[in-house]
Amino acid sequence: MAKEFKKGDPYGIHRVLEPKGVLPQPADKVDNDMEIYDNEVKIDIKTLNIDSASFTEIARQAKIQLGIDESTPNTDPKVVEQTKAIIMNIVETTGKHKNPWTGSGGMLVGTVAEVGPNFKGDLKVGDKVATLVSLSLTPLKLEKITDIRPEIDQVDVVGQAILFETGLYAVLPEDIPENLALSALDVAGAPAQAAKICRPGQTVVVMGGGGKSGILICYMAKKMVGVTGKVICVDGFQRSVDRAKSVNVADEYVVADASNAVEVYNKISELTDGKLADVTINVVNIPNTEMGSILATHDDGMVYFFSMATSFTKAALGAEGVGKDVDMLMGNGYTKGHAAVTLEILRESKAIRELFTELYA
Amino acid sequence: MAKEFKKGDPYGIHRVLEPKGVLPQPADKVDNDMEIYDNEVKIDIKTLNIDSASFTEIARQAKIQLGIDESTPNTDPKVVEQTKAIIMNIVETTGKHKNPWTGSGGMLVGTVAEVGPNFKGDLKVGDKVATLVSLSLTPLKLEKITDIRPEIDQVDVVGQAILFETGLYAVLPEDIPENLALSALDVAGAPAQAAKICRPGQTVVVMGGGGKSGILICYMAKKMVGVTGKVICVDGFQRSVDRAKSVNVADEYVVADASNAVEVYNKISELTDGKLADVTINVVNIPNTEMGSILATHDDGMVYFFSMATSFTKAALGAEGVGKDVDMLMGNGYTKGHAAVTLEILRESKAIRELFTELYA
Repeated sequence: MAKEFKKGDPYGIHRVLEPKGVLPQPADKVDNDMEIYDNEVKIDIKTLNIDSASFTEIARQAKIQLGIDESTPNTDPKVVEQTKAIIMNIVETTGKHKNPWTGSGGMLVGTVAEVGPNFKGDLKVGDKVATLVSLSLTPLKLEKITDIRPEIDQVDVVGQAILFETGLYAVLPEDIPENLALSALDVAGAPAQAAKICRPGQTVVVMGGGGKSGILICYMAKKMVGVTGKVICVDGFQRSVDRAKSVNVADEYVVADASNAVEVYNKISELTDGKLADVTINVVNIPNTEMGSILATHDDGMVYFFSMATSFTKAALGAEGVGKDVDMLMGNGYTKGHAAVTLEILRESKAIRELFTELYA
Repeated sequence: MAKEFKKGDPYGIHRVLEPKGVLPQPADKVDNDMEIYDNEVKIDIKTLNIDSASFTEIARQAKIQLGIDESTPNTDPKVVEQTKAIIMNIVETTGKHKNPWTGSGGMLVGTVAEVGPNFKGDLKVGDKVATLVSLSLTPLKLEKITDIRPEIDQVDVVGQAILFETGLYAVLPEDIPENLALSALDVAGAPAQAAKICRPGQTVVVMGGGGKSGILICYMAKKMVGVTGKVICVDGFQRSVDRAKSVNVADEYVVADASNAVEVYNKISELTDGKLADVTINVVNIPNTEMGSILATHDDGMVYFFSMATSFTKAALGAEGVGKDVDMLMGNGYTKGHAAVTLEILRESKAIRELFTELYA
């Protein structure tokens, strides 16, 4: 007789215990029973990659609980044990790993143990996967923590996790080392969105183009705009611009302070004979860079804000204040196939793969 | 001999005195000399419509300066005189009207006095106009304040203003009373953007559809989606939904708490046989409504956030958290022809015109 499955909600609302009627992420407690629903996947966890801000805060709380100095290294054996105890306790009491102080989670790496008959993805038992949804909404059950690497916020465990029908994941490739793949997947949404937006012949400005996601975006934009288009990589630091230049991802490189709107406008205007950008993609991790991106773009063009430092009101009121008719898109970390698109860059560009291996893997 | 004009920057950067190199809005002081540059327009001001939050704060400061109780009405003669003095002082010392406590401005109504030869708009001397750019960036010179109406934040003056080449304005129509026109122009961007986005046959959800901009958006969306499409007006208050219903701007009306994502999702799912919205437009003026709008929209659909209560990070991380591949647009208060598009609604819909006259004019 075939196994019977309970019918699950695509967003995992069926797992929410407290308070009822909210989504799993804002929920205080979720059901971490490891009997899967019809549209769920069960994963044997290898490693939890705790969000960096979250790990730092947990280690700090561990020292407070121990009554020891906060400057004690996170690798101190007593701190490690207390950190483990806090992580185990969070998961035991809430059924997931949402840091009670920062609200953030992280992601995990593991192996598919069971796939519900109505799960719509392409996973099969034995696949090695990284979940790309936050641990703050992922049902977890931990038996024990086997190792902890405070320097890189990683926690090896014996335990299992549930992936909802709408939960994002990436099957980890055989040909790319795990840490290199994870470092790229961390910013997977941005280059995949760039691929959706940029068209042949366009002029694309990438603000913050010398950073990790900036380099991937420049690469993808250059591929999409082709020989008739132009990619302008803008970064606030000479060394970041040099790094982007070393992997040859743009047609022009500019050092400029993204928060100085007039400087950005003048430099982009000069490089484009006053025509300005068709598309500006902003991944600058400092505040007040909205107006520079808006001014760098011509009327009817598009500004894509991908930085978490973006202020909605500054962008909205800024565009109106200068009478600029641009479409302004908010970065959505997810677009279909984003993991595959981004991992492919590491195969296509030997230069970027070497650079990322050196910097992040 | 023809009059000679100095060449001005489109954004008015040539008028910035302190600090140099910024845009007029963030500037502390702008040049309010009433000799126009080649691309500027001079306006004889009739009325300043001070931003409501700004006016309230100025009146409060007036009472503090007078050492009188803050509960004194803003219409008290002493308060009125002190309010006038503060407004005159702001303009005299900074050359514009940027409230030093709130940072906000307002707009003005007046008559075109002179048009520079290189101004690209369609204004001519004698046109009655409303400027739609903030007073916080508009060079002003005031001779005197002739009247003040604290109940509606209006200040009649003798004075002049400068409109930059990129400055937004609307020529006030002969056939619509001034206050009615101004109340609609206040939210002009939203319905014009709705017209750009919505396509025949689409299902459009308007969150906050019972408010002023919500009703205009519903009307425009219904016009664009046509008989094969469907507009669903969602509002948190029965009386707002009833108001929208009374002017017949939607196909379905729903009372729902926009901040309850699961409730919104369930109701929209039910009304669309699980297909969800092609486009969701959010003009809800309370926080935490991002997720409900995202869940109400199907994959590859679009969410248009038009409310200043929108949080960039909540929207960006929210969409990723539930693996939803939607385009998320940020409201730009300006799109070409936005004033004309919005005023035309008041001519097309007798019902909306009567409602707005009753409520706002």
